Amino acid sequence: MTATLTANSYGKSRVRLTKVVRHPAPSQRHDVYEFTVDIALAGDFADSYTAGNNTKVVATDSQKNTVYVLARENDFDSPDAFAKLLATHFVDTYPQVTGADVRVHQTLLTRVALEGKPHPYAFVGGSNEARTAHCRVDASGTRCSGGISGLVVLKSAGSVFVDFVDDRFRTLPDTTERIFATTVEANWRFTSVEADFNACYKAVRPVFIEVFAEHHSLAVQQTLLEMGKAALDASDAIDQVDLEMPNQHRVPFDLKPFGYENDASIFVTTDEPAGQIRGTVERT
Amino acid sequence: MTATLTANSYGKSRVRLTKVVRHPAPSQRHDVYEFTVDIALAGDFADSYTAGNNTKVVATDSQKNTVYVLARENDFDSPDAFAKLLATHFVDTYPQVTGADVRVHQTLLTRVALEGKPHPYAFVGGSNEARTAHCRVDASGTRCSGGISGLVVLKSAGSVFVDFVDDRFRTLPDTTERIFATTVEANWRFTSVEADFNACYKAVRPVFIEVFAEHHSLAVQQTLLEMGKAALDASDAIDQVDLEMPNQHRVPFDLKPFGYENDASIFVTTDEPAGQIRGTVERT
Amino acid sequence: MTATLTANSYGKSRVRLTKVVRHPAPSQRHDVYEFTVDIALAGDFADSYTAGNNTKVVATDSQKNTVYVLARENDFDSPDAFAKLLATHFVDTYPQVTGADVRVHQTLLTRVALEGKPHPYAFVGGSNEARTAHCRVDASGTRCSGGISGLVVLKSAGSVFVDFVDDRFRTLPDTTERIFATTVEANWRFTSVEADFNACYKAVRPVFIEVFAEHHSLAVQQTLLEMGKAALDASDAIDQVDLEMPNQHRVPFDLKPFGYENDASIFVTTDEPAGQIRGTVERT
Amino acid sequence: MTATLTANSYGKSRVRLTKVVRHPAPSQRHDVYEFTVDIALAGDFADSYTAGNNTKVVATDSQKNTVYVLARENDFDSPDAFAKLLATHFVDTYPQVTGADVRVHQTLLTRVALEGKPHPYAFVGGSNEARTAHCRVDASGTRCSGGISGLVVLKSAGSVFVDFVDDRFRTLPDTTERIFATTVEANWRFTSVEADFNACYKAVRPVFIEVFAEHHSLAVQQTLLEMGKAALDASDAIDQVDLEMPNQHRVPFDLKPFGYENDASIFVTTDEPAGQIRGTVERT
Repeated sequence: MTATLTANSYGKSRVRLTKVVRHPAPSQRHDVYEFTVDIALAGDFADSYTAGNNTKVVATDSQKNTVYVLARENDFDSPDAFAKLLATHFVDTYPQVTGADVRVHQTLLTRVALEGKPHPYAFVGGSNEARTAHCRVDASGTRCSGGISGLVVLKSAGSVFVDFVDDRFRTLPDTTERIFATTVEANWRFTSVEADFNACYKAVRPVFIEVFAEHHSLAVQQTLLEMGKAALDASDAIDQVDLEMPNQHRVPFDLKPFGYENDASIFVTTDEPAGQIRGTVERT
Repeated sequence: MTATLTANSYGKSRVRLTKVVRHPAPSQRHDVYEFTVDIALAGDFADSYTAGNNTKVVATDSQKNTVYVLARENDFDSPDAFAKLLATHFVDTYPQVTGADVRVHQTLLTRVALEGKPHPYAFVGGSNEARTAHCRVDASGTRCSGGISGLVVLKSAGSVFVDFVDDRFRTLPDTTERIFATTVEANWRFTSVEADFNACYKAVRPVFIEVFAEHHSLAVQQTLLEMGKAALDASDAIDQVDLEMPNQHRVPFDLKPFGYENDASIFVTTDEPAGQIRGTVERT
Repeated sequence: MTATLTANSYGKSRVRLTKVVRHPAPSQRHDVYEFTVDIALAGDFADSYTAGNNTKVVATDSQKNTVYVLARENDFDSPDAFAKLLATHFVDTYPQVTGADVRVHQTLLTRVALEGKPHPYAFVGGSNEARTAHCRVDASGTRCSGGISGLVVLKSAGSVFVDFVDDRFRTLPDTTERIFATTVEANWRFTSVEADFNACYKAVRPVFIEVFAEHHSLAVQQTLLEMGKAALDASDAIDQVDLEMPNQHRVPFDLKPFGYENDASIFVTTDEPAGQIRGTVERT
Repeated sequence: MTATLTANSYGKSRVRLTKVVRHPAPSQRHDVYEFTVDIALAGDFADSYTAGNNTKVVATDSQKNTVYVLARENDFDSPDAFAKLLATHFVDTYPQVTGADVRVHQTLLTRVALEGKPHPYAFVGGSNEARTAHCRVDASGTRCSGGISGLVVLKSAGSVFVDFVDDRFRTLPDTTERIFATTVEANWRFTSVEADFNACYKAVRPVFIEVFAEHHSLAVQQTLLEMGKAALDASDAIDQVDLEMPNQHRVPFDLKPFGYENDASIFVTTDEPAGQIRGTVERT
């Protein structure tokens, strides 16, 4: 038998960085960035696989150091900018690296406000929602995308689901009143690596929430498409939006055995199973 | 050998409830409660252990039903009220139940605001922070406590740690500038089961954040005590506060091998190990 | 208002240690221990809370160092022995420490066998089951207990549940054939700190599994008690066993809408809600 | 602006099934399968996105029902067979479905043995290791792959890492003795959908463990390739193996401040950051 290594990549994942930027007086404000970085490198690394020859291997430990050292040496104000900086570094620095994928997951910190005044250095965190960025550099150039992970939204009206396929596997009745709860995973593709990443994020996130709240939903699918279209409307820096929106069911608890009508007030909260709705919207 | 059953309890845990309360016009506002309920009953249940005789056993499945049915039959506006309602129910309904512990964990939902106007039925969630309640009913009466779980706070100044024990196990230098990050777990004891649970929660939570932000910390221990004292000051409905505040380290990344001074700007973010600081403060 | 610190403790938690012990020829066998250690110290630490005076504080960072240094300096062959060693160290070394609780959670590694021969240094892991140990040293002496966490067992016959309370909250029918699945959490109390910890663990674990498998269960409660009694029978080094056994339901999927009888073959696997059954058995 | 839906899919995920198969006398043995199923359907579903018209939508609730009903109606003895059955069902049953991806994750249960005799219906579980299967049916046919997720292996000798790139980002010394720990994620592609899925799984898993244990590793990359090649050698039912093997570091604890040489005995166990090594091996 002959066997061939037909694809490979390697890198460091889950590198966690906290960077404090101290602004001078008069503000003396601190900005704090908390990033988790995943790096994957492709290139001329087959010798390491086939012969254990590591002379071209940039150790994943060195990649980890690179995250911290470049964070020290460079100014940046978004996860996207940091992802671009790192991905570009690996391809530019090492001839054997032909492709670099860097993903950054930013934990969100909200600045404390006391009596309406922003605190210079205290923050509240704890959300599962994160801002994400992905930059890929390879022979075909540099591409950046941004995103949101873990945006939980729920509405207790304005969502129906009727007239779906009725066959022997169906037991779900048409529902004209249901809870619509989901955790939005979104990625948007920038048309330029020089885009204003922060402006886009600040434009898109509220639009997702607004459309979710206001759209009268005939299907999770329909709301997803409306959200994607609204994001494209909100930022001309992007031309494609991917959305993944699980339908996280609140199942009506059957009150009839206890002498009550089911009146869409009492639900069993579930994590599984979940519907999993996906769509990609492009500007045309 | 003789062996004796010296303690026992049983109950249903992780019962998840979503309740929608629809207010009439003009507001037509919905309130949505998402609770996870844990029940533990004590009483005359030894026969089930010793003989498999279940005639006195309220099935945990029936306990689960009880959560949903009582949620339908009763109005409540806090996890504390629901915990009290359930715990009282079990002791009052079943003579064989001599003690009931009910814990409620409320997932937080923030009402969406569009153009400054609160939305009637749309919410954003996703925080790990929760509001908690515990009610115990037994022969000695009814006791309620409230709490917060998962309140993540971080500050990048105003925290030092110096002059601790210096022996052969110490390698940590005195630190006059560090990041102080923690996840507050707090429980407060109500002096009366008729207390205004919501007023207390609304008074205590901001005080925790304010003291954390403003207190110049010489030790996590010291800040913890100040927070507990401030909570007692903020609400006279409570007479005891338990706090647990892990010291979630941001470890300075050593930049010296790369030619830079360590300037408290670049940190390795860690989950483990963590310091674990606990204290109980009582009104005297 | 006056407020008093009425209880406090602090320590390092989630200290993770891997120790390799290399035995000499002829075996050249390696033993690998993977422990996660939680330390909590009580004592004369109020000054740190009230005044930020840390002169008596053994930094949690120093506690972490202690775990690794004592692991280097001492031989041990069980999590119990290591917990005892650490707890004793803190009380003996620092006059201000009046109580030390040390908990050790051992990740299980199974030695690889190739053609029936144990491998000298390769292991398979990945189980959620762990061996646990707890040692407390204080003014009243030293107490050790051992345990098992995360022992998942399931049986598809030999479990019934009938004749429980029938009232308006009950919808569950009597069940003469059900799946009994649980995750055993067990702690046993040693009568002496000089007990043979490993012999006890090796005696008790198989007995839990055997009783679970063989006992015709009329209630989870009943099986729990039988398992506890069998553990006391299996090891005279212990005089008390605590057991916690959630009833992790496999809910019959209702096949009737699809034209089939429900024949106890098809179940919905669930994590929540779960029954939570607890009991303590003592030798008398 | 015009925006177009350029890709979409939907389905039910995390459908959890337990199936009990009762064999007749004389064995009266039970087989228990615990599967988590993820379904994704592609096809003529754009109307649901663009117009909320669900007439072609097979509700994800119906998909969930399908999992349980087909489990009742069919015999199968592997996750692969069940994945194939489900994926084929969706494409064959609904003209609007042009592609179906079904993934099955099997929780592993080990039959209890008492005095060397296999128990008819009692099992031990609790491992994070799972067997996985993926079947895709679309216009180009049916493709099946099998796999393993969460196979944790560790060895305390036989692993070195030297002579990697030495530049300003490197601080890691050459290491001639280290712990090699990883969690193998493997997927193998069957050359035929009629392959003997179980025979392949039974052949490949031990080979992974054996090669991991015996191969003198000059790089994780090298061991990964050897494992992939050995899998292809072990089963001629497959022609491609994908492997992902994070390098889960045990970091030497620096004993020098405490007066000891670092002798590769005491390590800090970590989850993050981790190296992430990937490779695909094909038969040629």
